[in-house]
Amino acid sequence: MVRILELVGLFVFAISGALTAIQRKFDAVGIVILAEVTALGGGVLRDVIIGATPPAAFQKVQYLLVPLAAAAVAFFAHPVVERLSFFVLLFDAAGLGLFCVTGTLTALEHGLGPVQSAVLGVTTGVGGGLLRDVIARQTPALVRADSDLYSIPAMIGAAAVTVAHAAHLPMVVAAPATAVFVFAFRVLAMVRHWTAPQAWTRRTPR
Amino acid sequence: MVRILELVGLFVFAISGALTAIQRKFDAVGIVILAEVTALGGGVLRDVIIGATPPAAFQKVQYLLVPLAAAAVAFFAHPVVERLSFFVLLFDAAGLGLFCVTGTLTALEHGLGPVQSAVLGVTTGVGGGLLRDVIARQTPALVRADSDLYSIPAMIGAAAVTVAHAAHLPMVVAAPATAVFVFAFRVLAMVRHWTAPQAWTRRTPR
Amino acid sequence: MVRILELVGLFVFAISGALTAIQRKFDAVGIVILAEVTALGGGVLRDVIIGATPPAAFQKVQYLLVPLAAAAVAFFAHPVVERLSFFVLLFDAAGLGLFCVTGTLTALEHGLGPVQSAVLGVTTGVGGGLLRDVIARQTPALVRADSDLYSIPAMIGAAAVTVAHAAHLPMVVAAPATAVFVFAFRVLAMVRHWTAPQAWTRRTPR
Repeated sequence: MVRILELVGLFVFAISGALTAIQRKFDAVGIVILAEVTALGGGVLRDVIIGATPPAAFQKVQYLLVPLAAAAVAFFAHPVVERLSFFVLLFDAAGLGLFCVTGTLTALEHGLGPVQSAVLGVTTGVGGGLLRDVIARQTPALVRADSDLYSIPAMIGAAAVTVAHAAHLPMVVAAPATAVFVFAFRVLAMVRHWTAPQAWTRRTPR
Repeated sequence: MVRILELVGLFVFAISGALTAIQRKFDAVGIVILAEVTALGGGVLRDVIIGATPPAAFQKVQYLLVPLAAAAVAFFAHPVVERLSFFVLLFDAAGLGLFCVTGTLTALEHGLGPVQSAVLGVTTGVGGGLLRDVIARQTPALVRADSDLYSIPAMIGAAAVTVAHAAHLPMVVAAPATAVFVFAFRVLAMVRHWTAPQAWTRRTPR
Repeated sequence: MVRILELVGLFVFAISGALTAIQRKFDAVGIVILAEVTALGGGVLRDVIIGATPPAAFQKVQYLLVPLAAAAVAFFAHPVVERLSFFVLLFDAAGLGLFCVTGTLTALEHGLGPVQSAVLGVTTGVGGGLLRDVIARQTPALVRADSDLYSIPAMIGAAAVTVAHAAHLPMVVAAPATAVFVFAFRVLAMVRHWTAPQAWTRRTPR
C-alpha cells in the first residue's frame, strides 16, 4: 500500500517536472531529465547527506522507470494532463505528505537527531521541486511569496513525526495520520490561497 | 592510452567551461571555477551517488590541474581557442564517448543495476555541462530544443555497455567500440544538426 | 573560542543569505532556506565529497538553529541589519578566513592531498554563497568581474595551510595566523575595491 502510494507520488512529482519542461519548450531529453530530477532529487539529496549510498532511487529500477513513464505520458498527452491539473496537484499533495513522513523516518532510522531528521524529511518532499526550478531557470516555487503554502505543511508534518518518535507513539498510526494531515493542510492552502509572509516592512496592505 | 585520452577529455570539457565564463564576462576566478566544474562535475556527481568517496576527481592531483591548465590557456588565448572551436567540439565528442562508457563501467563495478549504471554513465558525460550552465545562468544546452543531439548518443552508448556487460562480451573490445560509436554519432548529429523532438503538440511544421 | 567564532561565522553567512532572500522578495520560507543554504552549503559540499557523512552541519543541532535565528533576525529587523552592512561584511570576512582554514584542515585530516584539501577548503568558504546565488537566480558574486576579491584570499589561505601542514609547522599558530591573514586581505580588497582580471582581450582600459 505504502509502496504503491510511493510510486504514485513519484509519478506525479515527475509529471510536474515534465510539464515544466514542456512549458519551457525543452526537448524530449529535457522532459525526461526534469521528470527524473523532480521525482528523485529530494530523496537523493537526503540519502547522500545521510551517507546511505547508493540512494534508494538507485536501488530499485522502478524508481527510475516510473518517472520515465510519466515523462512519456506528458510528452504524448500533455494537453490532457494539463486539463487534469487539479488532480495532479491533489496527488502531488499526497506525495508531499508521504515523502516528508518517510524522509523523516529514514533519517531517524539512520540515527540523526530530531531537528536534523525533520530538515531532511522536508528536503525529501521539496528538494526535487527546487532542483527542477533551478534547472528550468525559474524562481523556485518554494521561495516565491505568491505561491500557496507547500513546505510549511511539510515542516509541521516532519516535526510531528519526530515528536511522535520521541514519545514512542506507535508509528504505524502516527505516520499515516501525519501524512494525511500534511495532505489536508496543503490542499486547504491551495484552495484558500494561503501564502507565507514576506519580511516585515515589505508587507504591503491588501 | 585511456588515461591520456581521459586527460584530453577533461581538458576539452574544461575549455568549454572556461569559454562560457569568458563569454559571460566572468573574472579569472569564474573562469577557473567553471573550467573545474564542467570537467569534473559529472564524475563527482556519479561518485557521490555511488558512495565512492572521495571521488576519483579528488584522488589524483592531475584531475584538478588539467582543468586549471585549460582555464589558463583560455584566459590568455581564448580568441585562438574560439577559432579552433570545431576541434574543441570534436575532442568534446571524444570525451563524451569516453566518459559515458567509463562512467557506466564504474557504476557496474560498484554493483549497481544496468539501468542505474546507464543513468550514471550518462550523468558522468553530461553532468558537468549541466552544472556549468546552471552556474552561468543559461538554459542548459542539454535540454534546449535547438541544440544538436548530445545526451542521446551517450544514452545509447551507456545502454550498449550494460548489454555488453550482461552478455559477458569482452569489455576490452566492447568498451572502445562503444566509445567510438558515441563519438561518431555525436559528430554526425553536429554536422547534420539533428535535434531531439519537443512534446507532441508543440512541434511546429518545418 | 574557535567554536564561538564558528557560530558567529555561520550566523553572518546566514544573514547574507536572508538579506538576499528579502531583496528578492522571497517569503519567510525562502528566507529560512537561503539562510540555511548559505551558512551550511559549503561545509555540506565538502563533507559529502570527502565522504564524512552525515556532514558536520547535521551532527550538532546548533549548526541548524543558528542560521534559523539569523533568518528570524533578518525577517523582523532587516532595515537595521542593512544599516549595519559594514559590520556584516566584516564578520563575513572573518567567517571566510575561519572556514577556509578549518575546511582545509578537515580535508587534510581525512587523508586528501594538499591541492585537493585546498580546493575543499575554498569550497567550504565560498560554496554556500554560490548555492545562495544559484537559488536566488543572480550571477554568482564569486564569478562576477565587478565583485571585490573574495575567493582569492581564501585560495591563498587554503594553500598556506597545506604548506604549513607539509612543513610540520605548529598548526595552533599557523591556522589562526592564516585565518587572520585571509580576513585582513579580504577587508583590504573590499576597502580598495580590488577585483580579479577578466580574460586578456576583454580587459578594457581604465
